Amino acid sequence: MAESMQGLKRSHRCGELSAANVQETVTIMGWVQKNRNKGGLVFVDVRDRSGIIQVVFEEGRTDKALLEKAAGLKAEYVVAVVGTVERRSGAVNENLSTGEIEVVPLELRILSESETPPFPIEENAKTREEVRLKYRYLDLRRPDLQRNLMLRSKVATLVRQFLSEEGFLEIETPMLGKSTPEGARDYLVPSRIHPGSFYGLPQSPQLYKQLLMCSGYDRYFQIAKCFRDEDLRADRQPEFTQIDMELSFVDVEDVIDVNERMLAKLFKETLNVDVPLPIPRMTWQEAMDRFGSDKPDIRFGMELTDVTEVVRECGFGVFTGAIENGGSVRGINAKGQGAMPRKKIDKLTSFVKDYGAKGLAYVAIQEDGSVKSSFAKFLSEAEMNGLIQAMNGEPGDLLLFAADKNKVVWDSLGALRLELAKQLELLDKNEYKFLWITEFPLLEWSEEQNRYTAMHHPFTMPMEEDLDLLDKEPGKVRAKAYDIVLNGNEIGGGSVRIFQDNVQEKMFEVLGFTKEQAYSQFGFLLDAFKYGVPPHAGLAYGLDRLVMLMAKEDSIRDVIAFPKVKDASCLMTEAPSVVDEKQLEELGLERAKEKE
Amino acid sequence: MAESMQGLKRSHRCGELSAANVQETVTIMGWVQKNRNKGGLVFVDVRDRSGIIQVVFEEGRTDKALLEKAAGLKAEYVVAVVGTVERRSGAVNENLSTGEIEVVPLELRILSESETPPFPIEENAKTREEVRLKYRYLDLRRPDLQRNLMLRSKVATLVRQFLSEEGFLEIETPMLGKSTPEGARDYLVPSRIHPGSFYGLPQSPQLYKQLLMCSGYDRYFQIAKCFRDEDLRADRQPEFTQIDMELSFVDVEDVIDVNERMLAKLFKETLNVDVPLPIPRMTWQEAMDRFGSDKPDIRFGMELTDVTEVVRECGFGVFTGAIENGGSVRGINAKGQGAMPRKKIDKLTSFVKDYGAKGLAYVAIQEDGSVKSSFAKFLSEAEMNGLIQAMNGEPGDLLLFAADKNKVVWDSLGALRLELAKQLELLDKNEYKFLWITEFPLLEWSEEQNRYTAMHHPFTMPMEEDLDLLDKEPGKVRAKAYDIVLNGNEIGGGSVRIFQDNVQEKMFEVLGFTKEQAYSQFGFLLDAFKYGVPPHAGLAYGLDRLVMLMAKEDSIRDVIAFPKVKDASCLMTEAPSVVDEKQLEELGLERAKEKE
Repeated sequence: MAESMQGLKRSHRCGELSAANVQETVTIMGWVQKNRNKGGLVFVDVRDRSGIIQVVFEEGRTDKALLEKAAGLKAEYVVAVVGTVERRSGAVNENLSTGEIEVVPLELRILSESETPPFPIEENAKTREEVRLKYRYLDLRRPDLQRNLMLRSKVATLVRQFLSEEGFLEIETPMLGKSTPEGARDYLVPSRIHPGSFYGLPQSPQLYKQLLMCSGYDRYFQIAKCFRDEDLRADRQPEFTQIDMELSFVDVEDVIDVNERMLAKLFKETLNVDVPLPIPRMTWQEAMDRFGSDKPDIRFGMELTDVTEVVRECGFGVFTGAIENGGSVRGINAKGQGAMPRKKIDKLTSFVKDYGAKGLAYVAIQEDGSVKSSFAKFLSEAEMNGLIQAMNGEPGDLLLFAADKNKVVWDSLGALRLELAKQLELLDKNEYKFLWITEFPLLEWSEEQNRYTAMHHPFTMPMEEDLDLLDKEPGKVRAKAYDIVLNGNEIGGGSVRIFQDNVQEKMFEVLGFTKEQAYSQFGFLLDAFKYGVPPHAGLAYGLDRLVMLMAKEDSIRDVIAFPKVKDASCLMTEAPSVVDEKQLEELGLERAKEKE
Repeated sequence: MAESMQGLKRSHRCGELSAANVQETVTIMGWVQKNRNKGGLVFVDVRDRSGIIQVVFEEGRTDKALLEKAAGLKAEYVVAVVGTVERRSGAVNENLSTGEIEVVPLELRILSESETPPFPIEENAKTREEVRLKYRYLDLRRPDLQRNLMLRSKVATLVRQFLSEEGFLEIETPMLGKSTPEGARDYLVPSRIHPGSFYGLPQSPQLYKQLLMCSGYDRYFQIAKCFRDEDLRADRQPEFTQIDMELSFVDVEDVIDVNERMLAKLFKETLNVDVPLPIPRMTWQEAMDRFGSDKPDIRFGMELTDVTEVVRECGFGVFTGAIENGGSVRGINAKGQGAMPRKKIDKLTSFVKDYGAKGLAYVAIQEDGSVKSSFAKFLSEAEMNGLIQAMNGEPGDLLLFAADKNKVVWDSLGALRLELAKQLELLDKNEYKFLWITEFPLLEWSEEQNRYTAMHHPFTMPMEEDLDLLDKEPGKVRAKAYDIVLNGNEIGGGSVRIFQDNVQEKMFEVLGFTKEQAYSQFGFLLDAFKYGVPPHAGLAYGLDRLVMLMAKEDSIRDVIAFPKVKDASCLMTEAPSVVDEKQLEELGLERAKEKE
């Protein structure tokens, strides 16, 4: 039976108390963390979001009824305690911020009782994630999740504060928008007033923010919910949050400048981490060549080496065949891993096959300088020595090679590099390495559609010096696009936008859009562009991933209050769920008949 | 043909320039507001979100090619101008913040041309709203809309700043939630992975924020998008924005305190309006009795007077009949309106019929003290005099009466009071009168469902002193609920929540919910409540309406960047729209066959 809190007013949060409060009468409220009964003493730890304070009930000193009431407290009961702060009579608890003090109670109220929770409310509980998510309201009581959500709140606050000071306006754009077939799959919302018609939930506020630039808002931002109906991976959610911004009358440098200062502020004020500015930059080409990735993790080396020229004339058909097909041969040197067992190398080989590689060629340099290699027999000794030298191979090293089209080689070795770093424990979550990737290709060739598609989106500005290539070699045109990468994660990306009619027309032409097609998808934006467009550029961050990295978590689910699981359902609310037929009827919809 | 801005960097926004910049070389960028060609002089007004600056091209002084280029500028061209700031040679323009100065150009680039816009870009354009909304990107260039959106951004920033300082955490809750049949109609989102199942877009984060209190987050807020699929009225949108908050270990006074300080800060820092604290409070009962409304506009008087006792024994059957049926007779005194023409009174009569009244009885007191009245013949002179006295009637006044059930009388006279105030121009948009309404009824009787329904929601706490009435006279139980009213608009509302099992059970019982029904709707909240619930309370504001009042606008569409119209469609994007059959197929849905 719950008692009322009438007449009481909380004076402090638990974790706010310290030796400075000794002798004060305080009123604290919170959850019973634990309750130890020990020879006439009852120690009750009371918890709230700020921390834990110990309340000590003592036979002889505490009123008898109160002592009995305290002895009956169970974990997760909600209590209010009025008492006096005193220095601990027992040992100081170094693990608690309040470890020097305790509260000697004058009054105890049980505001709410609790059943025994299905798992203990404590840091790093090893409970299965499905159970945690079903009882998310209990999971969210754990101090690590509370820290994460407090960090997330602080990040959002700092971002808003910084961008406001920089003249950005936060402007809300619609959730119920127009569905477009291009890009990822939209979540649809049926219209009741227009049966058979649908809204689309936004994949990003891209078109709206460009419209706002046309409308003269100059600097826009929004921390915006976005939606993609894709099959989920570990780090994807059907709804996710972007820090979205757009600026007028700017070029690449301006966007980079404001974002570097924002990131530096963010990391300083939350984690006390100094981000050295300027953040290093790397072109897309260099990133692929050196790291096999457009989001390189530069916390460690193990870079790729292009050995195409070294092996061009060698006798190993896998190498020369790839080169003849216009591909390349590249390798990485796993320093000191020359003794890696064959079985482990085989596992790495099967690992790279997921990235399209047909295999992995290796050279293990023994401590005595001799080599074990999957392909030594095809190479002369001079060729092998040349290859080892090109790879800076030394006794004890393991050299791993892929030979294929560039894309396959990059993907495979890029992934292999990260996998090795994981196995060798080269990744330190306390280290934060930022990197800008610039000069992305404007277009990529889609085998499936047999045409070029936009690597970012059709409004991305080509680099001025490549404009002439749009006609002749569109695949070589570089874009004024940029990604910001943190520890091998793309945390944000954006571009300068096309603001000139003629460039935009050319772009649609290269993409194989007829004027009609372009209009049916982007009509209102193209219309808006008839009435005076400022040069503009923007960037969007994935907030979930950014906070995940800041919180040193492995999953974005640990920085989202109520996340969904892989099948896009919520284990706590059991959404999505079946609704009344009547509701469907109002929307002019029927469940599809089972296919025979 | 657009020129590039390469090599240029904006130095100031247009409206930021002042006499302090005289002699400086500046680079401004913006839209051509207008272009006047006058005897060898070309005056070009350049506009951005900060204001307008005049650029003067002068024959003889300006390079000839530049002069010609300037002469060719049209409205809404986007230009960059490099030039020197000088004091105006001509007359100072008092209407412009930059009216003392002008820019003498060194360079002019046309960054983007413009077709002639369908309506002029200027303050208070009298364009039809449908045209404005179709070309919203142009409408949003108008200074009044820009001011509104800048105000809205500032309001959100201040709210966040204040609440963060007060220990509130901003926590995002899901958009893809569980649909519940109770309350207003949900917008549904079909699931592709679970065909035939649906998410519901949130009508408010109510359940989530209560869960967050159970989880110990202590103080939560969110500026949250909410959705209701209802037929729209002038001040409704299918999606709207709430400032939503919830606090643990608090009672009514704490919620009121923090919100009063927030409102005072908000109005001071945006409008320089002082909100005198404490904000006055009125019980629901008093508000209905005095103003016939639970959101009284207290900028003017014209209060209701209950004359039931005065006319109880009179000969006018309309009055006595209403009283015998348990109703009442109440009137308002329209001071000085005794000469209102009969036709106008008839219009008021038909106006109140929309609110359920069968008619309006009137007494017009002539300047000579005689009366014209629709019912004088049923009253003795003494009765009429008593009635006039009760109404403080004086020569020249118009007394208007309604007789019916209380609810009908309140609704009619409450609406009539506002209508008269409008007609008599008693409402000053520059005056801001706040009011708390407290002690709402917990329940209201639903004729339709033949049971009590929750006036706020089923988790609203009854007042302690009325708990005993829950069994005996549930209709008389008052709730710990409160609304904050501004100038006759409910801008926010909330309540203390039930946190005790037994009270919640009783509440469901009174609402006629079986345990199963309660569970099927609120299962996860009731489950959460088993594990220790803190006393908690909250409040939510309608941000759109709040900003509308602050901006002195009549429609929330004027404070929303991309609003929808009455049929919930967007005139600019033409959402909602028809989608591919393939998309429906993936969702396991079909369009319903036309009914024969």
